[in-house]
Amino acid sequence: MMPLVCEIIAVGTELLLGSIANTDAQDISQGLAEAGIHCYFHTTVGDNPARLSQALAVARERADIIITTGGLGPTIDDLTKQTVCEAFGVPLELHEGTWERILSFFRRIGKPVTENNRRQAMVPVGGVVFENDWGTAPGCGFQAGDTHIYMLPGPPKECRPMFANCLLPLLKSLTGATILSRNIKVFGMGESAVEDMLRPLMEKSSNPTLAPYAKEGEVTLRVTASAQSNEEAFRLTEPIVAEVLALLGGAAYGVDVDSLESVVLELLEANGVRLAAAESCTGGLVSAKLTAIPGASRFFLGGVVAYGRQVKENVLGVPEDLINKCGMVSGEVALAMARGVCKLTGAEIGLGLTGLAGPGGDGSNVPVGTVCIALFDARDRSHKEVTRNFGDERGRVRTMASLTALDMVRRHLNMI
Amino acid sequence: MMPLVCEIIAVGTELLLGSIANTDAQDISQGLAEAGIHCYFHTTVGDNPARLSQALAVARERADIIITTGGLGPTIDDLTKQTVCEAFGVPLELHEGTWERILSFFRRIGKPVTENNRRQAMVPVGGVVFENDWGTAPGCGFQAGDTHIYMLPGPPKECRPMFANCLLPLLKSLTGATILSRNIKVFGMGESAVEDMLRPLMEKSSNPTLAPYAKEGEVTLRVTASAQSNEEAFRLTEPIVAEVLALLGGAAYGVDVDSLESVVLELLEANGVRLAAAESCTGGLVSAKLTAIPGASRFFLGGVVAYGRQVKENVLGVPEDLINKCGMVSGEVALAMARGVCKLTGAEIGLGLTGLAGPGGDGSNVPVGTVCIALFDARDRSHKEVTRNFGDERGRVRTMASLTALDMVRRHLNMI
Repeated sequence: MMPLVCEIIAVGTELLLGSIANTDAQDISQGLAEAGIHCYFHTTVGDNPARLSQALAVARERADIIITTGGLGPTIDDLTKQTVCEAFGVPLELHEGTWERILSFFRRIGKPVTENNRRQAMVPVGGVVFENDWGTAPGCGFQAGDTHIYMLPGPPKECRPMFANCLLPLLKSLTGATILSRNIKVFGMGESAVEDMLRPLMEKSSNPTLAPYAKEGEVTLRVTASAQSNEEAFRLTEPIVAEVLALLGGAAYGVDVDSLESVVLELLEANGVRLAAAESCTGGLVSAKLTAIPGASRFFLGGVVAYGRQVKENVLGVPEDLINKCGMVSGEVALAMARGVCKLTGAEIGLGLTGLAGPGGDGSNVPVGTVCIALFDARDRSHKEVTRNFGDERGRVRTMASLTALDMVRRHLNMI
Repeated sequence: MMPLVCEIIAVGTELLLGSIANTDAQDISQGLAEAGIHCYFHTTVGDNPARLSQALAVARERADIIITTGGLGPTIDDLTKQTVCEAFGVPLELHEGTWERILSFFRRIGKPVTENNRRQAMVPVGGVVFENDWGTAPGCGFQAGDTHIYMLPGPPKECRPMFANCLLPLLKSLTGATILSRNIKVFGMGESAVEDMLRPLMEKSSNPTLAPYAKEGEVTLRVTASAQSNEEAFRLTEPIVAEVLALLGGAAYGVDVDSLESVVLELLEANGVRLAAAESCTGGLVSAKLTAIPGASRFFLGGVVAYGRQVKENVLGVPEDLINKCGMVSGEVALAMARGVCKLTGAEIGLGLTGLAGPGGDGSNVPVGTVCIALFDARDRSHKEVTRNFGDERGRVRTMASLTALDMVRRHLNMI
């Protein structure tokens, strides 16, 4: 069977002005790959019927499936449905269910319904309607000749769930094959080092394929297999996943896991220990990352954001002498912070981070980008410290320092 | 003069697989708007010469300027230069300066130079070359008939600075007009409420235009004017900016400012007061937002992430009785946290946040999404508390609670 080909057309002048990035195309493309549907083009056009018609005419020639995003709202700019239906000669009709929903919404908020709102309830005759549980504009679609056309709302918070819950299952039923990806997450090795190590494996692999993707401080290795079923695709990925993990050793922190922080929380739980963090240069970023995960409170107690010197001394009990002798950015102060936060909170494991995120220096001879991180284990009073330089970009220094601290906890609990 | 029209073609299979979003198109589009150049289409194609040729043929018909991103790397997939030059009948030649750079780079790292690396040094005959100070692949461009073609590298960290520093000045010289945008930032009003209030003004405005953009919890009103000079465009925006500010009152927190947190830091500095935060449900997010800004340490002391109950009691000194009587999520506990963090750190202003970010409840009758936020001013012992519900999405609850707390500081210091 020939694989189906899809084209994504994003509609919205805000995309052409650069106000937002086209993340809808990214989200949808990931799903298409998963469903074994090829995607050769993304197109973005403004809220302009003539140019949208032109894009539709081009897409129709080269795709089996066209997905549009955006232009389904209630304002006069929102012309996707009208333009698409005209292009394919399909009339619109009022969708009673949607119209009821809109009426009851306006009744609830006590405002009058306008003609524009009624337009939101119009859908292509003989097509499919996706109710919008995440906003007001419903999605819809129809088949015209050999072409399938689907229209999704533009706001990512509406587009993403509607695609995943309504459209993707429908697309999967159109195609037999499945493409399955597994993601091996790596921290502490650069992309080029990972590539150098895995190049022979990448070059000899075709199904599954192996490809690296770099994100700040992390590398993801994606193993992608194509097969007739999910189970078969999964089975195809198994040997190469095992081989990659063996090559990477402790640098791989998980397969198909959400994030380093989620792995750390699981390890804390598995070990029955609680963590607390004393953060200076990262200013709460370690805590914010951990507490973004539901249920974090069971094994992450919190901590202290010791941004000012007086907080380090008075709250964490870092001795003034120690700061004067070793310097604010020193392994000794980081360790005193880690110990201090354990004592203060009763946590078994404490992290201490002190550094210079920049862009300016602190008047000492410590180079910008230097961060000292300490881990203190109150159970046996063992500790580890590292001093690293993460460069001169403030955001990167803070992110890398946070991730490095979390990775220290992971390695400590895994005894790596 | 007719405005010039530009089309952006992104080249890269990773974009079509959804591995990354096309942020290059966003960055470039912002710059085009600034230069007064229109952009009607973005196109994305994979690393495939036939499809890139097809996209170039389409773009050539409808644009004066074509900018490609991606496909300039050293691997066999990187075919943009060859394909573009073939499409426009322009030969490639070795660029000595770039070739020297590449040779010296490989000499330094002690590795052999390959034929692929030599390809990176090939540029269109008679064109312009942009040296890459941010990576290895140079950018380049040429004029063929009435069409200007420019090729930039794909990685955003290389594309963005090369566009801003090399290409944008060149494009600005091609056109006379300037488009200038001013951004009015609003917190505490929903997008539809803002639109309702400003609709008459939006409808009657053409130069400058007025348009709202919503981001989680915030609305930005963009006022965009087109004129012959920056000064003239700025002058055109002045009356409408003033009118919008008058209508919005205290909900507008700034014009052309970076963020709510940057405004708060400026206000702290202007008032000579220092802030500290005691965070439960936000888990360090308020601190992380503030400390993302360079120099935050002068007026933000830090604080306590009181995620566990024992931290609230033992570190912040919230009385056990109070928690038992009023509940963990209560205005009383929030205020005790705000007081406690002032006492602990010596800050003049303290914030206390306690809430249920969800998705699960805490066994009490407090609904998920409820957050109590208190501000304590140690100078006159005045205080304010708010209790809000931010819905059932954990990320949104945390973000909205953080922003609301920062906005309380802004309003307090502005005496609104």
